[in-house]
Amino acid sequence: MTAAGFAWRITGQDGSARAGLLVTRHGEVPTPAFMPVGTQGTVKTLTPAEVAESGARIVLANTYHLWLRPGADVIAKQGGLPAFTRWPFAHLTDSGGFQAFSLSERRTWSEEGFSFRSHLDGSARLLSPEEAMRAQGLLGSDIAMQLDVCPPGSASRAEVERAVAQTTRWAERCLAARNPDQALFGIVQGGVHVDLRLRHAQELGALPFEGLALGGFSVGEPIEKMHEVVAAVAPRLDGARPRYLMGVGTPQDLLTAIAAGLDMFDCVLPTRNARNGQAFTRRGRISIKQARFRDDGSALDPECSCPCCREGYSRAYLRHLFMAREILVLRLLTQHNLWLYGELMREARRAIVERRFGPFSRGWLDGLSAVDA
Amino acid sequence: MTAAGFAWRITGQDGSARAGLLVTRHGEVPTPAFMPVGTQGTVKTLTPAEVAESGARIVLANTYHLWLRPGADVIAKQGGLPAFTRWPFAHLTDSGGFQAFSLSERRTWSEEGFSFRSHLDGSARLLSPEEAMRAQGLLGSDIAMQLDVCPPGSASRAEVERAVAQTTRWAERCLAARNPDQALFGIVQGGVHVDLRLRHAQELGALPFEGLALGGFSVGEPIEKMHEVVAAVAPRLDGARPRYLMGVGTPQDLLTAIAAGLDMFDCVLPTRNARNGQAFTRRGRISIKQARFRDDGSALDPECSCPCCREGYSRAYLRHLFMAREILVLRLLTQHNLWLYGELMREARRAIVERRFGPFSRGWLDGLSAVDA
Repeated sequence: MTAAGFAWRITGQDGSARAGLLVTRHGEVPTPAFMPVGTQGTVKTLTPAEVAESGARIVLANTYHLWLRPGADVIAKQGGLPAFTRWPFAHLTDSGGFQAFSLSERRTWSEEGFSFRSHLDGSARLLSPEEAMRAQGLLGSDIAMQLDVCPPGSASRAEVERAVAQTTRWAERCLAARNPDQALFGIVQGGVHVDLRLRHAQELGALPFEGLALGGFSVGEPIEKMHEVVAAVAPRLDGARPRYLMGVGTPQDLLTAIAAGLDMFDCVLPTRNARNGQAFTRRGRISIKQARFRDDGSALDPECSCPCCREGYSRAYLRHLFMAREILVLRLLTQHNLWLYGELMREARRAIVERRFGPFSRGWLDGLSAVDA
Repeated sequence: MTAAGFAWRITGQDGSARAGLLVTRHGEVPTPAFMPVGTQGTVKTLTPAEVAESGARIVLANTYHLWLRPGADVIAKQGGLPAFTRWPFAHLTDSGGFQAFSLSERRTWSEEGFSFRSHLDGSARLLSPEEAMRAQGLLGSDIAMQLDVCPPGSASRAEVERAVAQTTRWAERCLAARNPDQALFGIVQGGVHVDLRLRHAQELGALPFEGLALGGFSVGEPIEKMHEVVAAVAPRLDGARPRYLMGVGTPQDLLTAIAAGLDMFDCVLPTRNARNGQAFTRRGRISIKQARFRDDGSALDPECSCPCCREGYSRAYLRHLFMAREILVLRLLTQHNLWLYGELMREARRAIVERRFGPFSRGWLDGLSAVDA
């Protein structure tokens, strides 16, 4: 709560759900907020202006990828991520640990950090808490994340306990090595074990992080289990700080998490699924590849006012572009999906302030199940 | 000159170079005009608004590709190319012959037309002059092209003569099968043989085409030879009709062709080269991949005011995006290159009207040779 230029305050509450405002050196971010994922310093297929048009005011960049290519030093020389990428609003960077563990080859985890070989050129690397802080400082994000250990969904309770303990020790090293001009968030692990989660939340809550995150969800556990654990743990995270659910999820997941008191989210679903031809709508998902759209002259979602839907592109045209592997359709579907996530956040914030989040959420969930069911 | 809604008039002249105005049902197109290539009903990576921002008011669509996928009938059901693609300005369609001959498998050419197997699904197809007219009518372009035979640069004089004779017979069949609401252009062949070109120009000039094109260039012949033949032939094409040089070329090629009296151009170079990381500038070409741009904070072309250059994207960022295979850089380089082609056309038109095309052209050629040399 001491990081220069960073603050968060609650602007509305309804049950456990909160509306709030993050203040960063790169503008204000109303919460609940969805952060589009800009893995390599770009939200895939879109310009910063197009990302902002969806309502987003903060994006996530992946430290692992940028650290390996072009290198955090290269980005620092250009003035950091905002100058480099031309995204003028806030950035959050992850620590790089998750990708170092899931993408790289021959990785090992020790007290020191993650040792691994780059998936790009095979070079030997060490990602320690100090290096994670140094890299994120060079990237110049507004919010940095601590290095953590994120066990897979299949991990035993003992493995999860080791991950939790390691994450706490690394939390302290990250705080010691932190950059004074970045907010730093701690990451609560514990898998699907509510008792481990609550104990870890208490441990990290005692440390001077500006925010607290729930990591280690959406790693293979059943969705119902995730919802249940999130609902049990989220309200017990220190309520004075923003709470961030990492790597989750569908619109349904976000509604459930907002109800439990979470404020920030990131997920590749709206952008990645767009590139696979899948559009999110208030009436469930649409796969634009389907032959039934060959002669369909209607908009992707007649209820939507995103750039794709309002410019008059038909399902027939979008399907043609997708079948022909044309880049334009990847852009249009990405804009459409981020727009839907943006609307969901915008409407959720208003519903919380107006203390009608329950009925609002049920209305959305009913609609979403129309096709998904 | 009878096709509904189509007209062309000269608005300025300087030597053989002409400025003019094409009038179509989808707006006016000042000439000299460069037509970006929208092979599959989209100028790759861009929205129609972005294409128009470059100054283009007419795009080319490839009949061969659209005829095979999604099918000309599918596009007709959606109201034709303008409604389908949301490009509100003029369209020119080629006949499909060139791609049928160059892309498909087991193709043969007979009096009837091109017989071949689709490169997509292997289905047997016949592209006759009548089918080329029917398909282009369904696509609903403003300007259709006759079916022609385009021999490769390695063809013997006898082969070129056969192609010329066949093209004339197909010209007559295309005119008989033409759509009353499309302009129809004839295509002069003859390879690098000036006498064949001139004879063919006279034959086709006697037919009621709304415009005349030079086909069969940029098919492997030396560039100097192309420039020489174009310079000898273009001024002898009926001056009352627009003259179109198909599939050419670099900014240098276009300046030479405009000087010879050509009015319309299409080429994949600015768009395809963009996707390969190459930017055209007034000082020659730049390959954004080069390691020397790693820490280069300057704009791609500091003299340029295109969306890529004016938004502050650095060469360092563009290089990073290219190395990381991010789609955004393909968009930005495509916009940049089309912008340069648009500026070249805009400035050429003014120079012709102001009767200073010679010095104008020499100035550009000097600049272009700076790096290309």
